[in-house]
Amino acid sequence: MVNVLLLHGPNLNLLGSREPEIYGTTTLADIETMVRHDVESQGGSLRAAQSNSEGALIDALHDAIGWADAAIVNPGGYTHTSVALRDAVASVSFPVVEVHLSNPAAREDFRQTSFVAPVCAGSIAGFGAAGYLAALTALRNR
Amino acid sequence: MVNVLLLHGPNLNLLGSREPEIYGTTTLADIETMVRHDVESQGGSLRAAQSNSEGALIDALHDAIGWADAAIVNPGGYTHTSVALRDAVASVSFPVVEVHLSNPAAREDFRQTSFVAPVCAGSIAGFGAAGYLAALTALRNR
Amino acid sequence: MVNVLLLHGPNLNLLGSREPEIYGTTTLADIETMVRHDVESQGGSLRAAQSNSEGALIDALHDAIGWADAAIVNPGGYTHTSVALRDAVASVSFPVVEVHLSNPAAREDFRQTSFVAPVCAGSIAGFGAAGYLAALTALRNR
Amino acid sequence: MVNVLLLHGPNLNLLGSREPEIYGTTTLADIETMVRHDVESQGGSLRAAQSNSEGALIDALHDAIGWADAAIVNPGGYTHTSVALRDAVASVSFPVVEVHLSNPAAREDFRQTSFVAPVCAGSIAGFGAAGYLAALTALRNR
Amino acid sequence: MVNVLLLHGPNLNLLGSREPEIYGTTTLADIETMVRHDVESQGGSLRAAQSNSEGALIDALHDAIGWADAAIVNPGGYTHTSVALRDAVASVSFPVVEVHLSNPAAREDFRQTSFVAPVCAGSIAGFGAAGYLAALTALRNR
Amino acid sequence: MVNVLLLHGPNLNLLGSREPEIYGTTTLADIETMVRHDVESQGGSLRAAQSNSEGALIDALHDAIGWADAAIVNPGGYTHTSVALRDAVASVSFPVVEVHLSNPAAREDFRQTSFVAPVCAGSIAGFGAAGYLAALTALRNR
Amino acid sequence: MVNVLLLHGPNLNLLGSREPEIYGTTTLADIETMVRHDVESQGGSLRAAQSNSEGALIDALHDAIGWADAAIVNPGGYTHTSVALRDAVASVSFPVVEVHLSNPAAREDFRQTSFVAPVCAGSIAGFGAAGYLAALTALRNR
Amino acid sequence: MVNVLLLHGPNLNLLGSREPEIYGTTTLADIETMVRHDVESQGGSLRAAQSNSEGALIDALHDAIGWADAAIVNPGGYTHTSVALRDAVASVSFPVVEVHLSNPAAREDFRQTSFVAPVCAGSIAGFGAAGYLAALTALRNR
Amino acid sequence: MVNVLLLHGPNLNLLGSREPEIYGTTTLADIETMVRHDVESQGGSLRAAQSNSEGALIDALHDAIGWADAAIVNPGGYTHTSVALRDAVASVSFPVVEVHLSNPAAREDFRQTSFVAPVCAGSIAGFGAAGYLAALTALRNR
Amino acid sequence: MVNVLLLHGPNLNLLGSREPEIYGTTTLADIETMVRHDVESQGGSLRAAQSNSEGALIDALHDAIGWADAAIVNPGGYTHTSVALRDAVASVSFPVVEVHLSNPAAREDFRQTSFVAPVCAGSIAGFGAAGYLAALTALRNR
Amino acid sequence: MVNVLLLHGPNLNLLGSREPEIYGTTTLADIETMVRHDVESQGGSLRAAQSNSEGALIDALHDAIGWADAAIVNPGGYTHTSVALRDAVASVSFPVVEVHLSNPAAREDFRQTSFVAPVCAGSIAGFGAAGYLAALTALRNR
Amino acid sequence: MVNVLLLHGPNLNLLGSREPEIYGTTTLADIETMVRHDVESQGGSLRAAQSNSEGALIDALHDAIGWADAAIVNPGGYTHTSVALRDAVASVSFPVVEVHLSNPAAREDFRQTSFVAPVCAGSIAGFGAAGYLAALTALRNR
Repeated sequence: MVNVLLLHGPNLNLLGSREPEIYGTTTLADIETMVRHDVESQGGSLRAAQSNSEGALIDALHDAIGWADAAIVNPGGYTHTSVALRDAVASVSFPVVEVHLSNPAAREDFRQTSFVAPVCAGSIAGFGAAGYLAALTALRNR
Repeated sequence: MVNVLLLHGPNLNLLGSREPEIYGTTTLADIETMVRHDVESQGGSLRAAQSNSEGALIDALHDAIGWADAAIVNPGGYTHTSVALRDAVASVSFPVVEVHLSNPAAREDFRQTSFVAPVCAGSIAGFGAAGYLAALTALRNR
Repeated sequence: MVNVLLLHGPNLNLLGSREPEIYGTTTLADIETMVRHDVESQGGSLRAAQSNSEGALIDALHDAIGWADAAIVNPGGYTHTSVALRDAVASVSFPVVEVHLSNPAAREDFRQTSFVAPVCAGSIAGFGAAGYLAALTALRNR
Repeated sequence: MVNVLLLHGPNLNLLGSREPEIYGTTTLADIETMVRHDVESQGGSLRAAQSNSEGALIDALHDAIGWADAAIVNPGGYTHTSVALRDAVASVSFPVVEVHLSNPAAREDFRQTSFVAPVCAGSIAGFGAAGYLAALTALRNR
Repeated sequence: MVNVLLLHGPNLNLLGSREPEIYGTTTLADIETMVRHDVESQGGSLRAAQSNSEGALIDALHDAIGWADAAIVNPGGYTHTSVALRDAVASVSFPVVEVHLSNPAAREDFRQTSFVAPVCAGSIAGFGAAGYLAALTALRNR
Repeated sequence: MVNVLLLHGPNLNLLGSREPEIYGTTTLADIETMVRHDVESQGGSLRAAQSNSEGALIDALHDAIGWADAAIVNPGGYTHTSVALRDAVASVSFPVVEVHLSNPAAREDFRQTSFVAPVCAGSIAGFGAAGYLAALTALRNR
Repeated sequence: MVNVLLLHGPNLNLLGSREPEIYGTTTLADIETMVRHDVESQGGSLRAAQSNSEGALIDALHDAIGWADAAIVNPGGYTHTSVALRDAVASVSFPVVEVHLSNPAAREDFRQTSFVAPVCAGSIAGFGAAGYLAALTALRNR
Repeated sequence: MVNVLLLHGPNLNLLGSREPEIYGTTTLADIETMVRHDVESQGGSLRAAQSNSEGALIDALHDAIGWADAAIVNPGGYTHTSVALRDAVASVSFPVVEVHLSNPAAREDFRQTSFVAPVCAGSIAGFGAAGYLAALTALRNR
Repeated sequence: MVNVLLLHGPNLNLLGSREPEIYGTTTLADIETMVRHDVESQGGSLRAAQSNSEGALIDALHDAIGWADAAIVNPGGYTHTSVALRDAVASVSFPVVEVHLSNPAAREDFRQTSFVAPVCAGSIAGFGAAGYLAALTALRNR
Repeated sequence: MVNVLLLHGPNLNLLGSREPEIYGTTTLADIETMVRHDVESQGGSLRAAQSNSEGALIDALHDAIGWADAAIVNPGGYTHTSVALRDAVASVSFPVVEVHLSNPAAREDFRQTSFVAPVCAGSIAGFGAAGYLAALTALRNR
Repeated sequence: MVNVLLLHGPNLNLLGSREPEIYGTTTLADIETMVRHDVESQGGSLRAAQSNSEGALIDALHDAIGWADAAIVNPGGYTHTSVALRDAVASVSFPVVEVHLSNPAAREDFRQTSFVAPVCAGSIAGFGAAGYLAALTALRNR
Repeated sequence: MVNVLLLHGPNLNLLGSREPEIYGTTTLADIETMVRHDVESQGGSLRAAQSNSEGALIDALHDAIGWADAAIVNPGGYTHTSVALRDAVASVSFPVVEVHLSNPAAREDFRQTSFVAPVCAGSIAGFGAAGYLAALTALRNR
């Protein structure tokens, strides 16, 4: 697992910079730095991206074909509505891990369905930023 | 996170000892050894149990009150049917992590509902035995 | 109504001993004492039991055949999932009253279904420990 | 609990006066007398009303504001269809207890939903007239 | 079948007096006259009423106890929402026939459910004013 | 309304000849005779048919094109499953009346849906054989 | 838009007089005064009414036929259950605007359905008393 | 098919000993004797067990691994609620036949779902004790 | 049980003659011969029929009235859609057994509903041709 | 693709001969001629049939086994209800194309389900008679 | 309320320029001019944008953070499908008002769900362009 | 039909270039070439585009207004989730044909719903690349 794509979906660019008393002060940049450090410490390379556009997220997955050994994706709100993103995950041959900062199972009904999960290598939810490190641990040991 | 309870639900006692060409040769004992090694290497202590009985699993959670700092639970088939187990998880104050070896999201409809997930600290699914190490990583970093 | 069976289901053993600032300090022992006092003051006899196991609760109902004149059952989480417990209630000839401390109607969707209620003599919910005394009043006056 | 409002909904005025071989000979007047006796024996006062009109039942609840310490309501068929009655119960500050003579859980599907129950202090069903005495017991002991 | 109650529910008072180019010019008075003529021609007597209030319709059914040999009821919009009216129909011993001017089966989804139909002697729909004469024919020949 | 088609669906050929203590002794022939008498007394003509085959019922409707002024159809069990019969009713220009001997609204859930009703001129249910005379009354007066 | 009917449904008479720390101190009289002022300042006339009875609300709509140029209706709990009120709105030719003080979309599931909205000229929700002024603005500019 | 496991679930221990006027006087012991006789007459061996506990039934299936050539299971109420029992049936390699004394298809809605049936070799229902002999016939001839 | 009707529904005429590598080489004629042999060896008589027409299957059931002591029916695809066939089974007084070669519970969702099962004496599924012999065993021993 | 079966289901025999102002004047014979011309111009042979009977349509598919290279089927109303027709399509080895003249997706809810589509080689809908030529184009180029 | 963001979703760019006989001749530019005039007349400033892209709409909301005092959003088709847009609305601290030109409640079923409404300050629908002025009125008076 | 727009949605850019042993080696470029050749051979002109972005697909449809005589659209995963794309198709006046390479009816449940189909001129599915030629045939002959 040398090359890792880290992909964040809609609204996650606001992470940490708004309402820190609620969501904490960890920013998306902090998460990317933490993951990059972990990946590079194992001799790997990280490509990180965020977009609010469903199409751009699909493009990013397609662009990683031939380079990535694995992807960690937090699809945000597209988790629950995007068949297109699911098809993109299903069409790449490297393993994709779905990570959620919070626990969707404890939230609204419409967050109980994940179009993406059935075609992922695995899912991790509820651990905040620690979930990304868990994803790396899982990818390395499976 | 010193003391960890590792709890397995119904049919997981058969793991690895049957149909190894399908499920692999990793046994439940192998998993317990792997988790124990990881926990003890961090100076912690592991209590491991498996039962096919819903009531016995609830008893085990109750018994860990006052000792456990965290629990990792693979509820097997009770994941999808047990309100009583959910209530037990909700009634203990230490964090409980739900782990599944396979990816329930890619299986039958009745496996899409988890009564336990909404009251867990987090959920990890689809990574096989590696999911337990990921759970420990997540618990240590959250 | 001389002989009364008082049966409590999963997690109710924790009553009062944990999170007293939330659930109050009334323990299951307190409830059993209160009910026993009320029953005995009327010249009756009480048999009280609690179990986290669905099978053990069914066994307890079966064992009361030939002795009990009535049963008061708080099935806890099994209320919403146990056809087997329902069948047990339906198979005994003495009246069974379902009691809930809280008001399931004001809680999660999955608590809106009671498999047990349709075969009970009656149901009482939402009054805390007072519901047990109400159950005795109802049984004596029906 | 000095002042108690006893409120009956649609068709309950026919109680006991029709088909006595089926429903028994207890009339609504009998129930009101029984409840009044119990309330007054404790030094309290009873206000009793029945109406087939949803609006009149809401009016009665509003009119009891500032007088009633508790209400016992058998909403009859409005139990399953009236959001307005539910809102009325939610808008008064005294506790309201829902009582049903029969056991709705053992009847048609459309009787399984109670709009009123989630905002009541508690619910009692299936004990016939004895349920009203149980309601008083519960109100006094909670 | 000497004495017949003819009962109309909400908004049917507007019949014929508004938008005659759509609904025709037959008024509720015309229908009552037509039915009265038919009933009296057979030596019977008609009692006709209309109300926009659910409770008043229930009252009218109750008031007909001891007098009516049959009732013809067009419950209007209460057809689809009133458990209380259903219970009223079920509580009277004379046969009640449900009549609708239009064909609810060809209208909105929420008009596909009739709470009243299952407890009526029979149902007639879609024939306009002719449905009332059909109801009398059916009642006389059953 | 000179020419009338009377069409009966599956199992109605057994009417009256079996379990007379339950269904009465009126046979399908009795009904056809009664309807024929009523139609001919008004100078009309009746064509009567019964079939257990969905296709044969559709054929009969097609064959009546150009002859029938109206049809009275009791589709039996096909009421609830036959889109093809519905399309046949919709494709003829003469009015079709749906008649049921019993009251489907008071029977199983799957009998609550009628594919045929939305395209009929009207529906009559629950009056036994009298429903056919009611259908004729309705057709003559609409 | 000269003549405006302002109609409030069940429980809205309690507005502002109870639990002011929650709902504020604006009373129904305050709202009626505010709307009257706005209407009269444009040379119009206001007729205001409130009732807890579904039938009385329908009567009020019927009575406004021939006088009203528009109606603003807050149907309260009847929004979600009343087909009869919907039919009344559909049967008047002046435009009816549905106003809700709070945002039903953010409340319980059963408040997500409005029988009235599909036949209204428009709907406004969530702005508190300001919603009534918005309704007047909308009616004047459409 | 030499070795056969006969497994009965919750409440079936009461068979024949209670309400014989309803359920007949055949006891569970009678059924076990009948099946044992049939199995042994073919040179086979029977192991019979009953439990009210879901976990104990799973244990019994596991314990039969390596011994049983087939199992006949009447899961009682667990048929409709136990994913864990289903997983146990799926995890053993010998064929399992589901037998029900009565016909669940003719009972309550919640008895229409069998978690166990999809992973059984076959299902037999509605024949009373004769169903067990039919199961043996089917197992021998498939 | 002397006279037995054996009835097969749509597409079962193709049995064994097509795709033998999948469905095996047992033809419908083989099954009829096997069942006939078993019935005649017990001194009985068999009448066998197959049709792709829903109506013809109903006719065959009707024709067996007065002759058959029992019927074994494999309704094929009509199992899941035919209310008319259900009504036919319900209208004959001899016991009817539903047999399926495969296990519908393990197939598509729409095969989970059987309109016929609730009115059959019993059901047998999943044993291939052996299911017919099991049906005969069950019929002889019930 | 030499030999083609063209099969039409219920009510399609009325095509073009009725309500030409709505459905146009193209008859079923016109469609058969158009398809035959296209097939024969490519050196192929056409067998065309129409039936209102579900069984006859299944028979026609069975009869084409061994002759047809492809079938074009417009199942009419059976599209949405016939599991038997689906099973027939699934049991033949030549490709079957489903064609609809109109666009079921734009019609009633019950037309949104096609039992036949999942086992067809492909589906074409909404093009009127042109859809048959499109089906031939698709069959020749796939 | 000085600075206002006016945001339009997919297909609203076509407004007024196509099928003016149906939708009128008001263009999106007309609406923006009308809103700008109203905002600026109160001393405020308007930023207006339209996009067919879900991601671009989210970007626009994010970009308004720190500038906007309120936003008026017509999300078009994304209203019913976009969890991502909902999350964006929930993540900004200024009030967002949902406006629809037509009345979604009177349209297709899939338009009955708004993911955006529950997190908006309020919703206005059905008034055409006048709804935007009503939104400004509501925002100024709440 | 001179000018044709050919539009492909998300992930279809990967066609043929990945997993050719599964999906074949036909690329999107091959399909565009094939369609262009067919269109130009008839004297027409083709405009082809592919995008992973919902908004870009809507833009492409809008841009074709005034130029295109018809469009062939394979919306990929947006078929099942995009109300916005549906509205775009409905807002253009040239006919749009929906084409799918595979047969969605034979795939997952969430692929059974097409938001786009009801507003298309027609739909073609399951024929692979041949479906595009069928679409052209259908467009030319309708």
